[in-house]
Amino acid sequence: MQSFSNTLFADAETAYSDAAYGIFGVPFDGTTSYKPGCRDAPAAIRAASYNIETYNPYYDIELPDIPFHDMGDLYAECLPDLVVDQVEDVVLDLIKDEKIPVMMGGEHSVTIGAVRALQPTWYVVCDAHLDMQDEYRGSPFNHDCVTARVHDVTSQIIIIGARSGSREEFVRAREMYHVFTADEVKSRGIGSVLADVAKLVGTESLYLSIDADSIDCCLTPGLGTPEPFGLTPGDVREVIRALAKQAVGFDYVEVLPNDAGQTAMVAAHLIREFIAGHACTPKRYD
Amino acid sequence: MQSFSNTLFADAETAYSDAAYGIFGVPFDGTTSYKPGCRDAPAAIRAASYNIETYNPYYDIELPDIPFHDMGDLYAECLPDLVVDQVEDVVLDLIKDEKIPVMMGGEHSVTIGAVRALQPTWYVVCDAHLDMQDEYRGSPFNHDCVTARVHDVTSQIIIIGARSGSREEFVRAREMYHVFTADEVKSRGIGSVLADVAKLVGTESLYLSIDADSIDCCLTPGLGTPEPFGLTPGDVREVIRALAKQAVGFDYVEVLPNDAGQTAMVAAHLIREFIAGHACTPKRYD
Amino acid sequence: MQSFSNTLFADAETAYSDAAYGIFGVPFDGTTSYKPGCRDAPAAIRAASYNIETYNPYYDIELPDIPFHDMGDLYAECLPDLVVDQVEDVVLDLIKDEKIPVMMGGEHSVTIGAVRALQPTWYVVCDAHLDMQDEYRGSPFNHDCVTARVHDVTSQIIIIGARSGSREEFVRAREMYHVFTADEVKSRGIGSVLADVAKLVGTESLYLSIDADSIDCCLTPGLGTPEPFGLTPGDVREVIRALAKQAVGFDYVEVLPNDAGQTAMVAAHLIREFIAGHACTPKRYD
Amino acid sequence: MQSFSNTLFADAETAYSDAAYGIFGVPFDGTTSYKPGCRDAPAAIRAASYNIETYNPYYDIELPDIPFHDMGDLYAECLPDLVVDQVEDVVLDLIKDEKIPVMMGGEHSVTIGAVRALQPTWYVVCDAHLDMQDEYRGSPFNHDCVTARVHDVTSQIIIIGARSGSREEFVRAREMYHVFTADEVKSRGIGSVLADVAKLVGTESLYLSIDADSIDCCLTPGLGTPEPFGLTPGDVREVIRALAKQAVGFDYVEVLPNDAGQTAMVAAHLIREFIAGHACTPKRYD
Amino acid sequence: MQSFSNTLFADAETAYSDAAYGIFGVPFDGTTSYKPGCRDAPAAIRAASYNIETYNPYYDIELPDIPFHDMGDLYAECLPDLVVDQVEDVVLDLIKDEKIPVMMGGEHSVTIGAVRALQPTWYVVCDAHLDMQDEYRGSPFNHDCVTARVHDVTSQIIIIGARSGSREEFVRAREMYHVFTADEVKSRGIGSVLADVAKLVGTESLYLSIDADSIDCCLTPGLGTPEPFGLTPGDVREVIRALAKQAVGFDYVEVLPNDAGQTAMVAAHLIREFIAGHACTPKRYD
Amino acid sequence: MQSFSNTLFADAETAYSDAAYGIFGVPFDGTTSYKPGCRDAPAAIRAASYNIETYNPYYDIELPDIPFHDMGDLYAECLPDLVVDQVEDVVLDLIKDEKIPVMMGGEHSVTIGAVRALQPTWYVVCDAHLDMQDEYRGSPFNHDCVTARVHDVTSQIIIIGARSGSREEFVRAREMYHVFTADEVKSRGIGSVLADVAKLVGTESLYLSIDADSIDCCLTPGLGTPEPFGLTPGDVREVIRALAKQAVGFDYVEVLPNDAGQTAMVAAHLIREFIAGHACTPKRYD
Ligand SMILES: [Mn+2]
Ligand SMILES: [Mn+2]
Ligand SMILES: [Mn+2]
Ligand SMILES: [Mn+2]
Ligand SMILES: [Mn+2]
Ligand SMILES: [Mn+2]
Ligand SMILES: [Mn+2]
Ligand SMILES: [Mn+2]
Ligand SMILES: [Mn+2]
Ligand SMILES: [Mn+2]
Ligand SMILES: [Mn+2]
Ligand SMILES: [Mn+2]
Repeated sequence: MQSFSNTLFADAETAYSDAAYGIFGVPFDGTTSYKPGCRDAPAAIRAASYNIETYNPYYDIELPDIPFHDMGDLYAECLPDLVVDQVEDVVLDLIKDEKIPVMMGGEHSVTIGAVRALQPTWYVVCDAHLDMQDEYRGSPFNHDCVTARVHDVTSQIIIIGARSGSREEFVRAREMYHVFTADEVKSRGIGSVLADVAKLVGTESLYLSIDADSIDCCLTPGLGTPEPFGLTPGDVREVIRALAKQAVGFDYVEVLPNDAGQTAMVAAHLIREFIAGHACTPKRYD
Repeated sequence: MQSFSNTLFADAETAYSDAAYGIFGVPFDGTTSYKPGCRDAPAAIRAASYNIETYNPYYDIELPDIPFHDMGDLYAECLPDLVVDQVEDVVLDLIKDEKIPVMMGGEHSVTIGAVRALQPTWYVVCDAHLDMQDEYRGSPFNHDCVTARVHDVTSQIIIIGARSGSREEFVRAREMYHVFTADEVKSRGIGSVLADVAKLVGTESLYLSIDADSIDCCLTPGLGTPEPFGLTPGDVREVIRALAKQAVGFDYVEVLPNDAGQTAMVAAHLIREFIAGHACTPKRYD
Repeated sequence: MQSFSNTLFADAETAYSDAAYGIFGVPFDGTTSYKPGCRDAPAAIRAASYNIETYNPYYDIELPDIPFHDMGDLYAECLPDLVVDQVEDVVLDLIKDEKIPVMMGGEHSVTIGAVRALQPTWYVVCDAHLDMQDEYRGSPFNHDCVTARVHDVTSQIIIIGARSGSREEFVRAREMYHVFTADEVKSRGIGSVLADVAKLVGTESLYLSIDADSIDCCLTPGLGTPEPFGLTPGDVREVIRALAKQAVGFDYVEVLPNDAGQTAMVAAHLIREFIAGHACTPKRYD
Repeated sequence: MQSFSNTLFADAETAYSDAAYGIFGVPFDGTTSYKPGCRDAPAAIRAASYNIETYNPYYDIELPDIPFHDMGDLYAECLPDLVVDQVEDVVLDLIKDEKIPVMMGGEHSVTIGAVRALQPTWYVVCDAHLDMQDEYRGSPFNHDCVTARVHDVTSQIIIIGARSGSREEFVRAREMYHVFTADEVKSRGIGSVLADVAKLVGTESLYLSIDADSIDCCLTPGLGTPEPFGLTPGDVREVIRALAKQAVGFDYVEVLPNDAGQTAMVAAHLIREFIAGHACTPKRYD
Repeated sequence: MQSFSNTLFADAETAYSDAAYGIFGVPFDGTTSYKPGCRDAPAAIRAASYNIETYNPYYDIELPDIPFHDMGDLYAECLPDLVVDQVEDVVLDLIKDEKIPVMMGGEHSVTIGAVRALQPTWYVVCDAHLDMQDEYRGSPFNHDCVTARVHDVTSQIIIIGARSGSREEFVRAREMYHVFTADEVKSRGIGSVLADVAKLVGTESLYLSIDADSIDCCLTPGLGTPEPFGLTPGDVREVIRALAKQAVGFDYVEVLPNDAGQTAMVAAHLIREFIAGHACTPKRYD
Repeated sequence: MQSFSNTLFADAETAYSDAAYGIFGVPFDGTTSYKPGCRDAPAAIRAASYNIETYNPYYDIELPDIPFHDMGDLYAECLPDLVVDQVEDVVLDLIKDEKIPVMMGGEHSVTIGAVRALQPTWYVVCDAHLDMQDEYRGSPFNHDCVTARVHDVTSQIIIIGARSGSREEFVRAREMYHVFTADEVKSRGIGSVLADVAKLVGTESLYLSIDADSIDCCLTPGLGTPEPFGLTPGDVREVIRALAKQAVGFDYVEVLPNDAGQTAMVAAHLIREFIAGHACTPKRYD
């Protein structure tokens, strides 16, 4: 009998009922302000995942040994408030079924639904942008309003890699949240920044959201709102390795697969790194 | 003194106050179901317009001799109902200022606002799709609902080039409207079809909407919802030549500039053909 | 409960056990001589299939009402003889399970396995190329050898759209097979050619293979060995409509999705047309 | 001993001294007004030539049996007047060596040098544009001035496929030259037009220049100044078949290889068709 | 009343008469030796500028609060000497009107006209190339001759990021100018190099030219003559921050927007950084 | 007499008989598992080589002064075992003619033939992958089996930049070979790693193979199996500078030119660096 492959996330070979992690895509980009197309990210990230060996040497784990399941792509509505509601529904179902949600955007606004459902103590986000607009272009669920909407759930917010926002956003973010700019990460080193983060979050629950534009657009140009002078993929890998264990949910958003594939490839690696990092302990940490 | 050029529509050299035609772009693609990106169409069509000679030999007219003005791009909201309202506002202003609106989409839903403002007796559309869904993916202003929303203004509707829809849409369209499928245009010839159209519309006012996907996607692949087995650019040129004179408004929508430029180039030609055709009489018609 | 979609062929909603048609992809392009990449065709064609309405107005059928199943992509070996063997295995399984195989290449060599398994009386192929090399670049299973390998099964061969081959291939093809060149199709019309084909095949069983390069590369440029001066998508649609009913198997091969999507879009339409045409009778044929 | 290939025009296997035809590229695009890049055309056309079978069934000829030689690419200067001089030099050398020049542009201005060297009785050009500006953007050797500069050599000029120019150009072209617009070719058929051309040129010498933009940009979009509503590749093939025999020189210019390859593929075919048509008589002409 | 946007540089909202800075584009690439297309840079950089927040946190300034005006694109001739003259004219007008010129190339040769008009004491350039040819491919205004032509104005020249040139250029550059190679910047750090530069230029006037290819082509690949082993965008940002205050003119040249947008995005950021840096003092410099 | 250029490697101006280095391409990618297309690498690398100045300042050498010859592209078969045999033949001929082979892939499997012919004492490879599968997808000559096949010649193997493989491959590689992971190179610095390598290889002969995917795919995304978290181009340049002198053969493989050109540009630089480094001593080493 010949083998056939579907096109879901590589190594996601566990049935839903037996899975500890539920991956799903949200192909929605209705409010993106600069370049649309991050709706294509879930398909691109899944395709990229097939390029990666099943073995993760850092955690010394075979990914198929971790019980995770790819649910496919949410059949998304065309209005952001409705999509946020859909995501909230899906994540509530996953919570009920005792699974960790691993969401692939789509634009950043999808994070709102997940945070609403999970009610984490902390919200940690890697993002070039502060996303603190209360409303933008007619909607409070625009992808420029994510932090503002998350704040409706928790005000314990840590932003890593920030470098774009209005003056008023920067003033308020520095007052209310914990902001580590990309320049600060570059000058101090990510390890030093993560030591600060560790002190803040302690052992409390957190939601980890990776806006792909936190990474420098010269390294991963496939982005809807690309910014230079940003983090490296290695920086974000460190963030995930440091925080995966205590995360109650994870997403990777804002990938726009219009480059030669590197942005989706980094995303596929980092999503796998989250799953491995949540499930495993590194064999050696040097 | 050196000359400088801005990047508005070529030959649109008349001030707003003196113009008989007001061109504007609506860079909105929030509800597109297949491929996003038609928000980039106005910029692409304007860039293409600079490749075209000022002289139109069919009408023996220099385009700069026709008083038309490019207003730029509407700063669009991110929700389709709001964008439709914005378009309605703009077109009402143009009506008040006694100018003919010439709109560049963006997605087809922008047509709704123009038709609402202009209240034409007839709606003539070239489209691969019937666009008769009453609601789609959560919004009655989705680009799949354009005909349905236009019907709220007028039920005198002519669809040319149709080849995609649900069974129920086809049944209702054939009952309520005048549908000339792309296959029918191919077998009868566009001239024969336009003779039928002329009998229907007589000398009554009409709004002319060109959904770029009415044209075969093998000829102009830069489309959000591309369909083969369609019209030719020459067919649509004939439609415009036949109907421009009695049109109270015009739009060209759904161009997605992801090809080698041919789809935007055809759009630029046909928008200019509309303006020339509305303002002039062909010198020779053979 | 929210709906999720996988990324298999649109409307292929029937379980394998209940299906009358088994679609599968063979992402293999190891012997392509000019441009590689048709391994990506199955994914591109499936993605395109989501742009198409479920309703086919020519056959007045909803595609989901036809029981067909997408098996996914064969996990192909890297040598052409092995891949041909794999395809033969898969098709033998489908025959045993009383399903019609509908194969998406990958390169043309995959056809060999299907023909071997099905042993049709006739082989009808649309192709720019004669594919009659007995061996090419070291392998008798090169995609330039398909007709030669099919001849090992049946010598009743009809080639439509041919325009490329060696002198010796043209001489032998005209002697041994029934060749209708693309120029002949253009001058006589596809209807006249299909009348000849009907006389030849009578009611005997046939295998229908569509090499995408039979279509003019100016209309569908996404091809591994593109040739101008070819058939139109409409010509191939007529071939499929005429012959689907008596086909025991079907494939669509050699799509290389490096264009703006039109080549895969035509493929998705024509694969659906085959399924509808095999399962249904046109409601109206004008 | 293993075989190696260089990347010159396929089948150009004859040494310079024994060749009857000298092919060369002129990678110059310094004055192109809309999109630059036709400097890359010679490389793209040569690459495309490897996709084509050595056998041409229309002329029943193996191309390697015709003695033609690819000289490579002229190392072009950066100013148009200098490049025209270089081309003139090259063609004078070819004339001295009794070879027919076959030139691949680069932009259309290179034609000027060839015509100057060859001093043909007639100049026959397929072009969307009239190219009759006496000077453009500071140079009389701009690619918009080709016909004007050719007129300095001969005023017996035939333009096929024209559809773009200023009013003054159209008026003067109709007075002084023989213009067959693309619309006229479409309505009368290329055969009828070529009968007129045959009467004009009789058996006199002619230079044949194919500006690739004579072909409709919806069929071959890879062009510097693309225009829709144009000729088909089949029309231009007919022009070449009709006139190759009496041509003293040939060029194919203005290909900009930014599409999926179809424009260069058509160019490669038509350059080969010229060589075959000049060297051979069709076996069968139906 | 609805808002409309034109497509000029974002935040350039000041009228010409009130502006302290005049931005303009020069869409010329007639002499580029490797890949053409930097004529498209001004449009691409302007489009990118809309992705950037109005607020610059380093200078704590809202860009619209700085009076700068975008004049559009110079309608450039097709010969490099003429274009240099045009640029000189434009910059002389700006000097007369007491505005700082901020020029977007186009190729590097446009710098010659600006330097001629401004007659700075120092010329500081970031460039991978030494550009010291006295003539190249027939013109002394080729983009490979910029430093040679600037030397006709001033011999006080500082080149940062150099890594490509002939032996003779390297010998002469090291003798006559101040060259800091990209390898030197990498090993010493840009801060150390800028300390040397500060000592050289003191408080004298300088012209600052950024050839985009000074940056490593692995970080910003959208370049006409791309070179690896180069500067980082951060290095160039430091150069601009250090020197903007005393610059009498600025340009950013040689961007070729054929990548995923990152090269134009970096350009847009750095042009804004120049304007902010010239107009403001950083709030905090750590 | 005008100058013409062919399209072979820039500066390879020496006749075969006088050359000390024989460059050739192997346009084969039949077994690539993720993205095909590295067959196009030789043409892309040659085109890139024309962007590079003849002078190499590190070695203070004019490349044309080094006697190297470009033999063109091997006319490759379509099966990997046959291609390996072809490469072995070519390299045996080069050995007989006392020339150093410099091979441009194509996929990594071509290395096997060169190593077989040269029988080096050491095999040093930069690669993201361990390539230790004994058979993959039906062939022991798959590009995932290169190290395994090289091991049939020599077990003295050094792998630099590794970061992808199965657990079993990592275990065996660490036992049998000398593996320096990309993470190790980043943390220790390439200089420190190369000191270790120097101790291992001493003055013994070695074959140096650069799999382009050893470099981080965020820096050079044009790869068949791209991996982030990799080496920099500067790291690989150091490897080549350190080892070129004692290499008996060299290859650069797995470039897939689907990006903006940076990956082929780095390849062209590093191939030239190998030739210069083998032939010359650096003038200054700082
Ligand atoms: Mn965000
Ligand atoms: Mn962001
Ligand atoms: Mn529509
Ligand atoms: Mn439509
Ligand atoms: Mn075939
Ligand atoms: Mn074929
Ligand atoms: Mn021309
Ligand atoms: Mn032309
Ligand atoms: Mn420069
Ligand atoms: Mn430079
Ligand atoms: Mn390898
Ligand atoms: Mn590798």
